[in-house]
Amino acid sequence: MATHRVHFFYDCLSPFSCLAYKVLSRYQHIWPIQLQLRPFLLGGVMAATKNQPPAMRPGATAAATWSQQDMERNRGYFHVPMLPIPNNFFGPHGPADKSGLARDMRYQRLLTAIQMDYPDALPSATDNIFSIIHLNEQCRDEAGNVVLTPEVLEKVCTSAGISSDNASTLVSKRINDVDVKDSLKHTTGEAVKRGAFGAPTIIVEVIHNPDNEKEQIYFGSDRFEQMCFANDWPWAGPDPAHPTAHL
Amino acid sequence: MATHRVHFFYDCLSPFSCLAYKVLSRYQHIWPIQLQLRPFLLGGVMAATKNQPPAMRPGATAAATWSQQDMERNRGYFHVPMLPIPNNFFGPHGPADKSGLARDMRYQRLLTAIQMDYPDALPSATDNIFSIIHLNEQCRDEAGNVVLTPEVLEKVCTSAGISSDNASTLVSKRINDVDVKDSLKHTTGEAVKRGAFGAPTIIVEVIHNPDNEKEQIYFGSDRFEQMCFANDWPWAGPDPAHPTAHL
Repeated sequence: MATHRVHFFYDCLSPFSCLAYKVLSRYQHIWPIQLQLRPFLLGGVMAATKNQPPAMRPGATAAATWSQQDMERNRGYFHVPMLPIPNNFFGPHGPADKSGLARDMRYQRLLTAIQMDYPDALPSATDNIFSIIHLNEQCRDEAGNVVLTPEVLEKVCTSAGISSDNASTLVSKRINDVDVKDSLKHTTGEAVKRGAFGAPTIIVEVIHNPDNEKEQIYFGSDRFEQMCFANDWPWAGPDPAHPTAHL
Repeated sequence: MATHRVHFFYDCLSPFSCLAYKVLSRYQHIWPIQLQLRPFLLGGVMAATKNQPPAMRPGATAAATWSQQDMERNRGYFHVPMLPIPNNFFGPHGPADKSGLARDMRYQRLLTAIQMDYPDALPSATDNIFSIIHLNEQCRDEAGNVVLTPEVLEKVCTSAGISSDNASTLVSKRINDVDVKDSLKHTTGEAVKRGAFGAPTIIVEVIHNPDNEKEQIYFGSDRFEQMCFANDWPWAGPDPAHPTAHL
């Protein structure tokens, strides 16, 4: 019996969203939770909260050694074969450059359209997009850019069990529809209202809540052990099939 | 037999340094490490790296709900009864205000002087200053400010086993001596050179290093599980006497 609802607000652009998604996928049937996948728009969150991407902050250069080592250690510790950040994460002119993945709205809109029209396909489609952006070397060109063609996006859908015809409609039409755009904006606004300031944002709420317990907000992929302690859920490291915590 | 040297660069101002210090103290005889306490100056690190304190960043207001909940959850998870951030952490006019604890150099200079003159007393003195700033309600006035009088600083020394006379010399003279100030600056510079951009910074190096393994840098109090995985050290949560990780 699920006692908690876990809202996972994520943007597939975000490497820490990818790590957190893997952890949640592995633990979702171990913890007494209902996992709700909530694709949102990291760029919208950053704009609404005036937050800055870590790589754009004044101290970023000084943090580079740590940041690189941390990501490398995370590959082993999370048991997720992360590739380096795609070269087109931002466009050549920075975060506002529309040629960057960070300003490409298609993949989060596609996930939103799938959530609306084919909700059962959302976990698999999410997994596919995370793979394309962070895990699969074959999705990068020689310059280290992730190449997101309409064909690649359609394959995200068909691999998730959606028919070719419906995949084609999703990619060519649905992702431009107002109701899909509005839904994505709405989820982003809801996350900000609930305290999000980056990605991923994880909100844990009690399902039957007679004591009126306040919902808890977690940021990033490095608070699962704290979350488990707070909720008395099991934790043996990011991959319960390969426990890393022991005395 | 210790296989690794762990440099713990810390400033007692930093709440995450306090949490990390507790974890390191508890695990130092469980892990095969030589723990080296390296008091440094967080303000110097921030200035040298142009880093900004989290509370001063553009997204800080939006992160307030999370930040508050996170610290509250950390109390239980780390098993450390952290008080709220002191009201005089910064002075009324912000980080540059000299009346704030953040611009009070005395306690880190005192630790440096103790490190130079009475190295065996450093762990206990460090523990005492962390308690005064973050744990002991009796060290705060009605306004929630930490009050650091010369008497309080002398008691830090005597509680660490230093005689009253020597404590008095440390607080009235040594903390103003050029060699002490220079040593603190030098440690801060060394940390920045090795990749520090905030506090705490933990650097792990192999003692006998035939394979010429690169030293590893960790930032903050939330990477111990990753550090243990990377080094194959035991981890059962922040307090091995109260294991929190289990399946």
